Amino acid sequence: MTIQTPAPNADLAETMLQLGRNARAASRALGKLTPEDRTRGLKAIAAAIRAAAPEILAANAEDMEAARAKGLDAAMLDRLALDEARVEGIAGGVEAVSCLADPIGRELARWTVPSGLDIARVAVPLGVIGIIYESRPNVTADAGALCLRSGNAAILRCGSESALSSRALVSAMRGALEKEGLPQDAIQLVPTQDREAVGHLLAGLDGNVDVIVPRGGRGLVERVQMDARVPVIGHLEGLCHVYIDGAADPEKAIATAVNAKMRRTGICGSAETLLVDAAIAGTLLPKLADALKEAGCELRGDERARAIVADMKPATEEDWATEYLAPILAVAVVDGIDGALAHISRWSSGHTEAVITEDQAVADKFFADVDSAILLHNASTQFADGGEFGMGAEIGIATGRIHARGPVGAEQLTTYKYLVRGKGQVRP
Amino acid sequence: MTIQTPAPNADLAETMLQLGRNARAASRALGKLTPEDRTRGLKAIAAAIRAAAPEILAANAEDMEAARAKGLDAAMLDRLALDEARVEGIAGGVEAVSCLADPIGRELARWTVPSGLDIARVAVPLGVIGIIYESRPNVTADAGALCLRSGNAAILRCGSESALSSRALVSAMRGALEKEGLPQDAIQLVPTQDREAVGHLLAGLDGNVDVIVPRGGRGLVERVQMDARVPVIGHLEGLCHVYIDGAADPEKAIATAVNAKMRRTGICGSAETLLVDAAIAGTLLPKLADALKEAGCELRGDERARAIVADMKPATEEDWATEYLAPILAVAVVDGIDGALAHISRWSSGHTEAVITEDQAVADKFFADVDSAILLHNASTQFADGGEFGMGAEIGIATGRIHARGPVGAEQLTTYKYLVRGKGQVRP
Repeated sequence: MTIQTPAPNADLAETMLQLGRNARAASRALGKLTPEDRTRGLKAIAAAIRAAAPEILAANAEDMEAARAKGLDAAMLDRLALDEARVEGIAGGVEAVSCLADPIGRELARWTVPSGLDIARVAVPLGVIGIIYESRPNVTADAGALCLRSGNAAILRCGSESALSSRALVSAMRGALEKEGLPQDAIQLVPTQDREAVGHLLAGLDGNVDVIVPRGGRGLVERVQMDARVPVIGHLEGLCHVYIDGAADPEKAIATAVNAKMRRTGICGSAETLLVDAAIAGTLLPKLADALKEAGCELRGDERARAIVADMKPATEEDWATEYLAPILAVAVVDGIDGALAHISRWSSGHTEAVITEDQAVADKFFADVDSAILLHNASTQFADGGEFGMGAEIGIATGRIHARGPVGAEQLTTYKYLVRGKGQVRP
Repeated sequence: MTIQTPAPNADLAETMLQLGRNARAASRALGKLTPEDRTRGLKAIAAAIRAAAPEILAANAEDMEAARAKGLDAAMLDRLALDEARVEGIAGGVEAVSCLADPIGRELARWTVPSGLDIARVAVPLGVIGIIYESRPNVTADAGALCLRSGNAAILRCGSESALSSRALVSAMRGALEKEGLPQDAIQLVPTQDREAVGHLLAGLDGNVDVIVPRGGRGLVERVQMDARVPVIGHLEGLCHVYIDGAADPEKAIATAVNAKMRRTGICGSAETLLVDAAIAGTLLPKLADALKEAGCELRGDERARAIVADMKPATEEDWATEYLAPILAVAVVDGIDGALAHISRWSSGHTEAVITEDQAVADKFFADVDSAILLHNASTQFADGGEFGMGAEIGIATGRIHARGPVGAEQLTTYKYLVRGKGQVRP
């Protein structure tokens, strides 16, 4: 008789595989629903989240207690915390997604070729999407809702801090789907915080995961990009630049620069580096510096900037490469648009950059030469957001070059297939 | 004094990195060209290939001699062989690409949001594309031309069999670019057959490769998909199905089935499995079998098929999973559209499937339920081709779910960026 050695964590592997198979089956069923079915499901989910507010808040209170015991900092506690208004905000977000145009089945293009074949390109769901996120519980509902709107099954893996809050949310969402006769496995939560579960998800669960979306800090995204065996949609960081051209309107320049940095410093669209044209720096930089400092911002300047505004810390090479996500701004004086383009080309993370100028030729050059996902002329980088883009919601912002770039909404969570209509054609 | 140990193959690593840096620099320059510049470059390349025909044929003769000495089979020798007509075909292919609409700078969408921002989504090149292919020398010119049309720099890695032919082609192409004052590093050939070079390419050459396109057999594509650290666009195999419905027109059924299998058996769009509705199999399958056998096709049937046409080999499970790329066809009798959908859902590789029927409801169900890249109604699967789709040419066919699916032409070798025009807006 031989004693059988169990495989390492075979139960977890099997649990995860089962999640994958459930998701695939749900995704097949989702593809056969009508847009009205998906809308009905989303409205039912919004209602169910509202109805489950007491359970969700109780679960969140437990999460908060554990987080405080672990010594999480104030910013992280704030991201985790729910109250009645925030739960209402989550439900309202799902409702907003229910009002979005359904992206599935759209005819993206249609043409006839000389052989007489009629060729149509039609939008279909991606399939199964794995979302790996950190502490914000609202991602649970946002991501689940966007996946449902786009006919995709979602496998959600939340951070350990929000495990109970997320479980309460998912429970309400699945209950709503079941009550509406829709596949409840359209939204599943990984039921364990075991880190190995993430490894299984990144390996694709035996072909049952089509895309991974990481939502979180650089560490999380880097791990996901390194280990994933399936495509990843996301971004490592948002090292966003604002270039103030010599032909900038000074008032617009000050307003947009302060807003780009200071409206919210912790989001990926906040500015990290300010580039000021030498032609205007002598007069404008002191005013810019005053406005930023007044808003609570620390400035770190290159030599040319510090020659104009003396009380800045000196900026090192590292400052040009740092996404502060904090009220700190690196400042450099550059020689016009060409100097700005050279700096951005070297240091940009490909997320979002803004040019402030009244000279259309400069704006055109900036738009043509900078190759980031989002370029803005005379507007704050903080507009880099799916909601502000009119997409209703976003599952994240992508800086990769294939599939989606910029805000990723329901439309970006689709692919397409070709439908070719013939009359018995054979190829010569 | 310490003796320094050189890194393993440091020279190769540096050579490959230099290719990557050259390609990135060329891709930046390509982005600033006008569509007319790219067209001019393509026409010059076509002319240069024609002018270099003697050198290309001499190089090919050396490749052929080495291939014969290595004992390559007739099919591989045929893929490798060039003659004057084939060189003219290659030049003509580049000319055809020069006539395609330039995909760069197209405004894909434009809208205004409540904040007053004007948002445009504009097509831009992917950047640097690595193409890894086997023996066909024509891929050198096709891929290089499609990349140039779409503003991308190409790094080509050919199979060892076609090394000299490819080098002669690339030499003509780069010469043409140089003469036209265009960046000749838009098209580079990996200068060594060392297999480690592929590893460097798949690792992305320090961020200087954006996408890999493998062109070749399953073994090549599998290795690329396994090892690549950058996104891969391609397909493992084309296990294409033809379903003959009970409501099929018998003549169309026979013509399309024979063409789908036998027009060319070695291409990814050739049919590998024939599914015949039990409702029509008794009368139609014998005629189908006769026509296929007459065309030289071996048939392997399931029990129900062999009960109707006795002289078929029995098909095993393996037959449903095999891309023969040869005059062999697996045949199964299924119970109507639902039986066909079940078989295809289990065995399809997601490439191309056809339904032959006069019943529009059956065709609609097939189009809705099958999730392959290309679906055809009453037409041969051999139409799965960028040229037949009116794309002018293709760099390959993709079965992945993100970015491009189906034939990958110049338009599919692009991504986009958002251009946002404001009037000094800040985000509240």
